[in-house]
Amino acid sequence: MISQNIKVAVDAVVFGYVERQLQLLLIKQKYGSEKNKWALPGGFVLDHEDLDTAVTRELKEETGITLAYLEQLYTFGAVKRDNRQRVVSIAYLGLINPKKFKLTASTDALEVGWFAIDALPPLAFDHQEIVAKGLERLQNKISYKPIGFELLNTEFPFSNIENLYQTILNKPIDRRNFRKKLMSFGILEETDKISKPESGRPAKLFRFNTKKYKALEQKGFHFEIKFA
Amino acid sequence: MISQNIKVAVDAVVFGYVERQLQLLLIKQKYGSEKNKWALPGGFVLDHEDLDTAVTRELKEETGITLAYLEQLYTFGAVKRDNRQRVVSIAYLGLINPKKFKLTASTDALEVGWFAIDALPPLAFDHQEIVAKGLERLQNKISYKPIGFELLNTEFPFSNIENLYQTILNKPIDRRNFRKKLMSFGILEETDKISKPESGRPAKLFRFNTKKYKALEQKGFHFEIKFA
Repeated sequence: MISQNIKVAVDAVVFGYVERQLQLLLIKQKYGSEKNKWALPGGFVLDHEDLDTAVTRELKEETGITLAYLEQLYTFGAVKRDNRQRVVSIAYLGLINPKKFKLTASTDALEVGWFAIDALPPLAFDHQEIVAKGLERLQNKISYKPIGFELLNTEFPFSNIENLYQTILNKPIDRRNFRKKLMSFGILEETDKISKPESGRPAKLFRFNTKKYKALEQKGFHFEIKFA
Repeated sequence: MISQNIKVAVDAVVFGYVERQLQLLLIKQKYGSEKNKWALPGGFVLDHEDLDTAVTRELKEETGITLAYLEQLYTFGAVKRDNRQRVVSIAYLGLINPKKFKLTASTDALEVGWFAIDALPPLAFDHQEIVAKGLERLQNKISYKPIGFELLNTEFPFSNIENLYQTILNKPIDRRNFRKKLMSFGILEETDKISKPESGRPAKLFRFNTKKYKALEQKGFHFEIKFA
């Protein structure tokens, strides 16, 4: 067997959506050469655990959260991406509604917090590059998978999903076509509840029907929203 | 620094298109517990080389080929995917026109060959799963990136690109709409040459204009072919 001096780690790009902003989950590092710098949650893979188990564990340990939506993003393996020792990191993309969890920094994390994606602090290692890749994946994917709903409350006014798409894509969308298209799929249900916003008009609440979407998907249905 | 007993490898899913068949590049393993079994070309990453350098080197060593098109596919890291020792493998997807290279098995490969995708031999490790992931990526990607041309001769009759899409997608396509759409992009040029097929009618040859495509792409052009 070859002698090799490379370690294997996982990192998580976790996005949340709060107050009309796309936010990123970061921890402040407690140890190492980049101590006190903000970084993506993550760490070394243990010998006996699969990659997705490792990223789930690291997220739980360092930030206190457990994700419903997590997918493999890309693997970063440039020789000098970490100056202490060679580390290949398998990055994951996660989505969460920040209101559903209380953040708790622990183990390797001094602090944990949400940061607006357009006002990030300087990040450790090549984490800026990993975040860029995560954002690109999210921007592409919301057009062909209804993953945006992972970021919202179970029930939400229609304007929230509109704003979410505009925020993630960082451009205005044709609201009328967007609504028409999204409603035509039959996977978004009107409830009989009304929101009571602090400002603005009350609005009917909607709910994403996951069960119906899964059933449709099995029959070959493709979710797709196009933006000019 | 954590003690970890995991090795890092790369594997390549390389597709070629010959005689109206999508083919996969495989090597017969010279060593190890799965000796004499067919497998994807690949091997351990050296300490001083980046991941894409590693996969390029392994392909050259084991099969004699160098790819113009190579992208990272997915990372496979299940604990027991290799029974000798834990290996995390970063898989790559490559495309090539098999006519452009002479295959030469060397180093860890006893033999090297092309196999029709629907008649593969039993593969070592979890390579069947890696191939499935590669095929899925190729099927998705040819709809929104003109990567199919990597598989063809520089000049080809129009029916070749039609057949290529039908073969990869494994279903018939609406030939008239396909041609109209593809020609409308202005990235496919008619040459003044005529093919002289052994059977069938002579046909005008076409050429993909990579330079023009790159220029259009920079201006925000999106290649997209939809299949009902």
